[in-house]
Amino acid sequence: MERVTASGARAGALTTPHGALETPFFMPVATQATVKGVDVGRLRDTGARMVLANAYHLHLRPGEDQVAVRGGLQAFMGWDGPMLTDSGGFQVFSLAKQVRVTEEAAHFQSHLDGSAIELSPERSMQIQERLGADIAMQLDHVVALPSSREKVDDAMQRSLRWAVRCRDAHQRQDQALFGIVQGGLEEDLRFKSAEKLIDIGFDGYAIGGLSVGEGPHAMYATLRSVMPVLPLQKPRYLMGVGRPQDILEAVSQGVDMFDCVLPTRCGRNALAYTLNGTIRLRNARHSLEEGPIEEGCLCAACRHSRSYLRHLFLANEMLGPILVSIHNLTFYSRLMGLLREAIIENRFDEVKQNLERSLSGGEPLSSAENDA
Amino acid sequence: MERVTASGARAGALTTPHGALETPFFMPVATQATVKGVDVGRLRDTGARMVLANAYHLHLRPGEDQVAVRGGLQAFMGWDGPMLTDSGGFQVFSLAKQVRVTEEAAHFQSHLDGSAIELSPERSMQIQERLGADIAMQLDHVVALPSSREKVDDAMQRSLRWAVRCRDAHQRQDQALFGIVQGGLEEDLRFKSAEKLIDIGFDGYAIGGLSVGEGPHAMYATLRSVMPVLPLQKPRYLMGVGRPQDILEAVSQGVDMFDCVLPTRCGRNALAYTLNGTIRLRNARHSLEEGPIEEGCLCAACRHSRSYLRHLFLANEMLGPILVSIHNLTFYSRLMGLLREAIIENRFDEVKQNLERSLSGGEPLSSAENDA
Repeated sequence: MERVTASGARAGALTTPHGALETPFFMPVATQATVKGVDVGRLRDTGARMVLANAYHLHLRPGEDQVAVRGGLQAFMGWDGPMLTDSGGFQVFSLAKQVRVTEEAAHFQSHLDGSAIELSPERSMQIQERLGADIAMQLDHVVALPSSREKVDDAMQRSLRWAVRCRDAHQRQDQALFGIVQGGLEEDLRFKSAEKLIDIGFDGYAIGGLSVGEGPHAMYATLRSVMPVLPLQKPRYLMGVGRPQDILEAVSQGVDMFDCVLPTRCGRNALAYTLNGTIRLRNARHSLEEGPIEEGCLCAACRHSRSYLRHLFLANEMLGPILVSIHNLTFYSRLMGLLREAIIENRFDEVKQNLERSLSGGEPLSSAENDA
Repeated sequence: MERVTASGARAGALTTPHGALETPFFMPVATQATVKGVDVGRLRDTGARMVLANAYHLHLRPGEDQVAVRGGLQAFMGWDGPMLTDSGGFQVFSLAKQVRVTEEAAHFQSHLDGSAIELSPERSMQIQERLGADIAMQLDHVVALPSSREKVDDAMQRSLRWAVRCRDAHQRQDQALFGIVQGGLEEDLRFKSAEKLIDIGFDGYAIGGLSVGEGPHAMYATLRSVMPVLPLQKPRYLMGVGRPQDILEAVSQGVDMFDCVLPTRCGRNALAYTLNGTIRLRNARHSLEEGPIEEGCLCAACRHSRSYLRHLFLANEMLGPILVSIHNLTFYSRLMGLLREAIIENRFDEVKQNLERSLSGGEPLSSAENDA
């Protein structure tokens, strides 16, 4: 990472076998090897440069061997840019049934067909190496929040031991491996987790187990305690985050990478992001609105009026979800570009303040949203 | 229509306020002002040049006034090419509830909310003029087949009287109006319907009330009795048809225009068209298939392997329906292009024979399919 600092925010570059990326950046989520409703050509048009897929989901279907035989994830889904696979720790603990964690592995039943699966750190590395993304994530033990300090500590310690096993098992030289900081909302546990991970040594460091219902203030406080510990020269990735305002705050604390299902999930539900806040396209007040979602936006959705987009949602036409997903991904790319530019031009604090004000102007999200 | 003849098939041009079209051509169906799952940019890429929308559906939602205030259908949906609106006669008699036909109008309840609607020939013209497509269709009285000769005759006669009223009520100079030949499978009734419509005088003539379960042979026989009656210099449109083999046959009898939901409906159901027949992408035998749906096809779907497309359908990802709809529309455009080329090069009979053989090679359709 080269970097330019203004407040805690940083702009740099991340090099991968599939090209270099300017940081900070946002990764659209392609859980099952597709960003929902968006073909790779349209995805490229949104400004997205790196895409996340999920090893848990792809292990279950179609299986990593089928992906490997096609030449890996990029060839399989036709995406020629960088990719990252999440290990699926989060999905095991949120989606799978009958989860039992031993020191050896997580044991659970597939949420698809109930078949018994054992996911060890070594197996996770094997799966992710076969999937072949540019960045793999360690397998971690994720606990729901709130949980007792004892439970959070136990899972964090296990995640550290699994981190060592992942590091030892990981072989592909053309694939980076990131460790994941755990420890819930306990400042000292987060601190300890980060320090130990740095000792083990990873190509980058992620903050996991956040955006699981703890609220933005607890998330920001946790970031404040962890970020200063992480090495400046390595990329920092805040997993599963988040809303535009969360990204502003996290970038100000030095986070480089994000992923979140919000742009596509909200897009499927007729909620559009703009720099002046969110727009609920089902609202009757858009029925005669000739303007696009956002003036000046060049995406495929903004070729249309809000009234047309509203019609698509009321008529249950899949083009509505498709177009607003494309718009929201374009919005996230533009937002990251604005933040990067502001950092480089040393105007970040001012831009952040202005964006915080303007972004709060729309129709609010009804509830926090996380994803499969 | 200029034309080049070889057997009964003809190639020509149709001029509309939104540009000229080479015939014969196929219109993708945008019932509710969108081709299901395909944005207008991708739609243009399929080779489609004219699109059909449905006045019945658009009258119910969002209403022709909302479309007119946006500047008409083309502006509303962002499609800059020619369009045609079906009057909705077929939908009234297939979708609406409590249908009662008087000489004055069709009376029925909306299939959306049960509200009472009266659709007269004059009202249909008003709605279609407000929608503003390049071609409007007369309101006709459609009966299900099989029906008694008496019932078919009665509906055909009423359709003729409504045709006169449509002709008289239609005012827009920049919109063509087509009459619709009815008469079920009764050769003499079809003949009479066609003759009378020609007396009334329309910009083009459609064959309606076919592809409603009567089987291909009855359809072809009906075409054979009607087509020779229709004036050579006017476009001929076979409504709601059809399968590639039906199009081959109809083109050989001099039909110029087609529309059908098959390419998109089949696309949503993982059935892909190729020159070597249909492919069912859910079939296990495609799970390791590295090749695309069709070698040499340049569509967005054919950038991908069949195994990836199969994965999308098994994973219930909307990108599967999107991509295969795009492929099928591209296939229909290519097919029409091949037929036109064959007509111009005076090789139509040979090409038709070869295509009939190759198209029958795939996995067959499970059932006839018609649409909303």
